Amino acid sequence: MAELTHMIDSEVFLTFSTYATIVTLKMMLLSLLTSYFRLTKKVFANMEDTSLAHSTEDKKKMIRVDPDVERVRRCHQNDLENIVPFIVIGLLYALTGPDLATAVLHFRVFVISRICHTVSYVLVLPQPSRALSWVTGMLATFSMAYRVLSTALFL
Amino acid sequence: MAELTHMIDSEVFLTFSTYATIVTLKMMLLSLLTSYFRLTKKVFANMEDTSLAHSTEDKKKMIRVDPDVERVRRCHQNDLENIVPFIVIGLLYALTGPDLATAVLHFRVFVISRICHTVSYVLVLPQPSRALSWVTGMLATFSMAYRVLSTALFL
Amino acid sequence: MAELTHMIDSEVFLTFSTYATIVTLKMMLLSLLTSYFRLTKKVFANMEDTSLAHSTEDKKKMIRVDPDVERVRRCHQNDLENIVPFIVIGLLYALTGPDLATAVLHFRVFVISRICHTVSYVLVLPQPSRALSWVTGMLATFSMAYRVLSTALFL
Repeated sequence: MAELTHMIDSEVFLTFSTYATIVTLKMMLLSLLTSYFRLTKKVFANMEDTSLAHSTEDKKKMIRVDPDVERVRRCHQNDLENIVPFIVIGLLYALTGPDLATAVLHFRVFVISRICHTVSYVLVLPQPSRALSWVTGMLATFSMAYRVLSTALFL
Repeated sequence: MAELTHMIDSEVFLTFSTYATIVTLKMMLLSLLTSYFRLTKKVFANMEDTSLAHSTEDKKKMIRVDPDVERVRRCHQNDLENIVPFIVIGLLYALTGPDLATAVLHFRVFVISRICHTVSYVLVLPQPSRALSWVTGMLATFSMAYRVLSTALFL
Repeated sequence: MAELTHMIDSEVFLTFSTYATIVTLKMMLLSLLTSYFRLTKKVFANMEDTSLAHSTEDKKKMIRVDPDVERVRRCHQNDLENIVPFIVIGLLYALTGPDLATAVLHFRVFVISRICHTVSYVLVLPQPSRALSWVTGMLATFSMAYRVLSTALFL
């Protein structure tokens, strides 16, 4: 892992920046989707969010759990649990000086697998579409982690 | 995005470090606030946390869902969903060599909007105070993401 | 915080990479553990995950909340809430040029405390084992944040 500073100016790092930004934006879209469902279906988690309703009865009805909102939230949570490790390990991986082609392959496989995961989750595609895309993303991250630890293990 | 290594020694990167640390500490405070509410209101999620109670009856009563605790936890979750993207995109943005004044403006707007978000959430301020601070933070992150992708798009 | 670029090639940064990768992999293991419990105990959150069951009755029974699954999920959530701040602040801390011995101590204390936290949570060890490991990890992160802010505060 010598000369890490050279790696920052490398194409690998720039490619990582692009894919990391894209997959992070994809994750943020789920925040907007949750808000969209909450506003259109009038399902809220906080009393102060129901100010559009007039009577207290109507307000209380808006504080409920909706299956569509919960589905998007589970999808979002799964993104957090998988994209955060990708960003951390991918950044360190980009600094180990991998082949550009190998690195791009890892980044592409991960980002495409997460897009497939979101589509499978939100559109309720039959399994194992969602399970396979989740596993594929994990394997890409594990593969990068293996390279980070085998290139430089300082305990 | 040439000469990224120079950017790391820049004032933009140092400013990013400061704001990223502050907003991360703010997020961690919500962990402490959750613990504080759990201990003072005696509301726990795990059976082994109720060892202060003597009878099994008292222990079971402590395993419940409390609206104040849930409110802080939702606030914390919203922080995770918004601050993680800011850190990732903000770090890459700081390496694209933006104007110091523009960069500081982005970081300040984001951090202040998240502080307003937490205050609105925890103190139950009337809407749209919380909604506006959430949207403001998102816009700051989107604006930085736009610059990252327009400066260097390596697919 | 002068000459940050030199710091990236330092042993402190390489050590940070190692510990950050290890603790991130540990967090990812909880995803796998959740899946393991869901599959062996047949507890799912989505209707499309129950395709192994034949009758609609059996499928509905599989959509439920299981205490073991929820325990692992709370443990995973606590990891996200604590490991993300460690990664962010630890990365910036590694760039402030700390003593190698001091830095390694911080990283080790954090990673070991999180492993203890997971073991205490999943194996339901009596308190205060889990509380102490949680506090220890937080203190390590706060100590690094103090150094980041005291070395370079650019507001």
